[in-house]
Amino acid sequence: MSRTVSDKMANLRPSAVREILKVTSDPSFIAFAAGNPSAETFDVSALKKLCDSTIDTSALQYGVTEGYEPLREVIRARYGGKYGLVNAGADDVIVTSGGQQVINLAAQSLLNEGDTIICETPSFIGALNTFRAYNARLVGIPMDGEGMIIDRLEAALKAEPRAKLIYTIPTFQNPGGTTLPTERRLRMLELAKKYDVMILEDSPYFELSFGEAPPPAIKSLDDDGYVIFAGSFSKIVAPGIRVGFSIAPKWISAKMIVAKQTQDVHTNGVFQRAIYKWLRDFNIDAHIAKCAELYAEKSAVMLRLMDELFDKRVTYTRPGGGLFLWCDLPAGYSGSALAESMTEKKVAIVPGAAFDVSEDVHNPGFRLNYSVPSVKQIESGITLLADGISAYLAK
Amino acid sequence: MSRTVSDKMANLRPSAVREILKVTSDPSFIAFAAGNPSAETFDVSALKKLCDSTIDTSALQYGVTEGYEPLREVIRARYGGKYGLVNAGADDVIVTSGGQQVINLAAQSLLNEGDTIICETPSFIGALNTFRAYNARLVGIPMDGEGMIIDRLEAALKAEPRAKLIYTIPTFQNPGGTTLPTERRLRMLELAKKYDVMILEDSPYFELSFGEAPPPAIKSLDDDGYVIFAGSFSKIVAPGIRVGFSIAPKWISAKMIVAKQTQDVHTNGVFQRAIYKWLRDFNIDAHIAKCAELYAEKSAVMLRLMDELFDKRVTYTRPGGGLFLWCDLPAGYSGSALAESMTEKKVAIVPGAAFDVSEDVHNPGFRLNYSVPSVKQIESGITLLADGISAYLAK
Repeated sequence: MSRTVSDKMANLRPSAVREILKVTSDPSFIAFAAGNPSAETFDVSALKKLCDSTIDTSALQYGVTEGYEPLREVIRARYGGKYGLVNAGADDVIVTSGGQQVINLAAQSLLNEGDTIICETPSFIGALNTFRAYNARLVGIPMDGEGMIIDRLEAALKAEPRAKLIYTIPTFQNPGGTTLPTERRLRMLELAKKYDVMILEDSPYFELSFGEAPPPAIKSLDDDGYVIFAGSFSKIVAPGIRVGFSIAPKWISAKMIVAKQTQDVHTNGVFQRAIYKWLRDFNIDAHIAKCAELYAEKSAVMLRLMDELFDKRVTYTRPGGGLFLWCDLPAGYSGSALAESMTEKKVAIVPGAAFDVSEDVHNPGFRLNYSVPSVKQIESGITLLADGISAYLAK
Repeated sequence: MSRTVSDKMANLRPSAVREILKVTSDPSFIAFAAGNPSAETFDVSALKKLCDSTIDTSALQYGVTEGYEPLREVIRARYGGKYGLVNAGADDVIVTSGGQQVINLAAQSLLNEGDTIICETPSFIGALNTFRAYNARLVGIPMDGEGMIIDRLEAALKAEPRAKLIYTIPTFQNPGGTTLPTERRLRMLELAKKYDVMILEDSPYFELSFGEAPPPAIKSLDDDGYVIFAGSFSKIVAPGIRVGFSIAPKWISAKMIVAKQTQDVHTNGVFQRAIYKWLRDFNIDAHIAKCAELYAEKSAVMLRLMDELFDKRVTYTRPGGGLFLWCDLPAGYSGSALAESMTEKKVAIVPGAAFDVSEDVHNPGFRLNYSVPSVKQIESGITLLADGISAYLAK
């Protein structure tokens, strides 16, 4: 009787992301299904040098849970200064094992079983599964081309007395590729205050802008301590090193630190120091600009071919940055059926159902990633996908 | 109203370990309070070389949650072969972010709120706080010089219908310094089966033996899938890199992998590969023997001085390995009062209350670490401590 899993984990399956990783690791597939940054953006020789100069007995010893203090300080300086994300005196920075851990620490610190999380649908699978693992109730708010529809958010807040958290990826959303305009950000914040609900702003892509800067972060618009900001070095340095950060009001940061102690004590000490030196000594803005330029080029190739070849009934977003765009088949068609049919042609896409809060297999959407495939793969893959869509819609 | 922390975190304070780290980072203190391995045991140049040869685009990209397959394979080979810890076909290995994460993943995968954990008292604070963070009920079983008193374990299992897990550090226990004899291990396993309760065997120190090998791991005595083994490279390579592992039956490993996905996606890719190469190319047994020799010497100095100088009413364990020993003042005296009085003399010890399942401030015990202080510091510190004890007992 005791050899049974916890109720909260009983129904949680390995996420579709795992299956995606398996497919994308098959090199014969054209991988539009990845969530990875391009390996071309990894500065291997810089990281080798940084590690070599960093590994010493201090980096190898246990460290404090909230993170290596000089790294916390440069994060405060950069993200507070350039983007206004730190409310000095009121906020604390924690170095985390990737942005994913911020989501988990916030959930552990805030949620009682049965509390409600309100989020975009579709949304990031890793976050949805984290909330499910805390036995939270998920309420998905539909999006249009500009992200979460705020009137629907207010209706949900009214209907959900146990709403505890609004989870949002406002900038270059995963999987939507949408960006919430400033006016909607202000309204979301207003509603959070009106209904006394915290916002978890997950923003791993916001610095990867293709043109003009995106609207200010919700965190930077908030003076009243309603926002937890989840940041990450995964998409601007490398994900394998697992370094991210949170910026959050002190009362919640204090609990997140205790939560982190119970999870992994602290984040890898060598890479905390390597990122510190990177931020201190390298021109990170120039590096990010190079990453963004690469993704801007690839997304432009993808969109040009989609405009040319896709059945006109298919709609899609035109992201201003980030790694993803989202396509919708006409009503009545299923992204899952399309994704399955494309595996025969060795083109991997993620069906919308994977990101759907209610996991509806009839979701007509699918996500495309352009950071991982080469320009050549994008050309052949989109051609195959356009043919596959036409064949499916002709059925 | 929503801006309140979760019930499970509301009463969880930063652990005494945090305070310990603060005190031990003050270099003017003699640090008997640490939980760290000695920095002398870190092979800085080997790790530099391993990292340099390891950092490539593959190590920097996202990896699979269960861990880098070649590392899983060498863990299976070493810990399955030499120690019989892997039940081939029935068990899975997961690479984790330190041994701490194994405890958390097991808790997340097994515990419903209100379930009972049975453990030694005193026990490892990091584990106790993890169980508290899942709103588990802790039942502490007293120890004698040979670890958990098994008759008391059976009484607790009878009395606790919601017992879900026995948490134990059977070898060179933290903080007790005790080692459970084979006969007690067999009885614990028998009771786990009789009452259908899983065992979480936390064993970060077992390879650091001062003389003859300790009794076989409980995991190696179990053919029926009742044991989750938590292993760690923190004390035999370095803790700052945060690499550990679990060996557990497949049904629970599958859920632990899903849980890990929600925590940090995967463990640092560079150090997973560095540890793989370490295990493959270096003589890890020779390295471990050197670490154990250092700790054997230091503990011998400490015990010799304690035998000579301590008030005869103080009792203590004589560990056969690991990092810690445990002292008990006579009944009616408090380890907390002694620890506080010693801070004036700049000697840091951890009061037993910190490890006590019921956090009883009247606990007469305290823990001494001998891995961190130098032999010279052990000599002056134990002299000061002996004087402090005499003064306290004379009051």
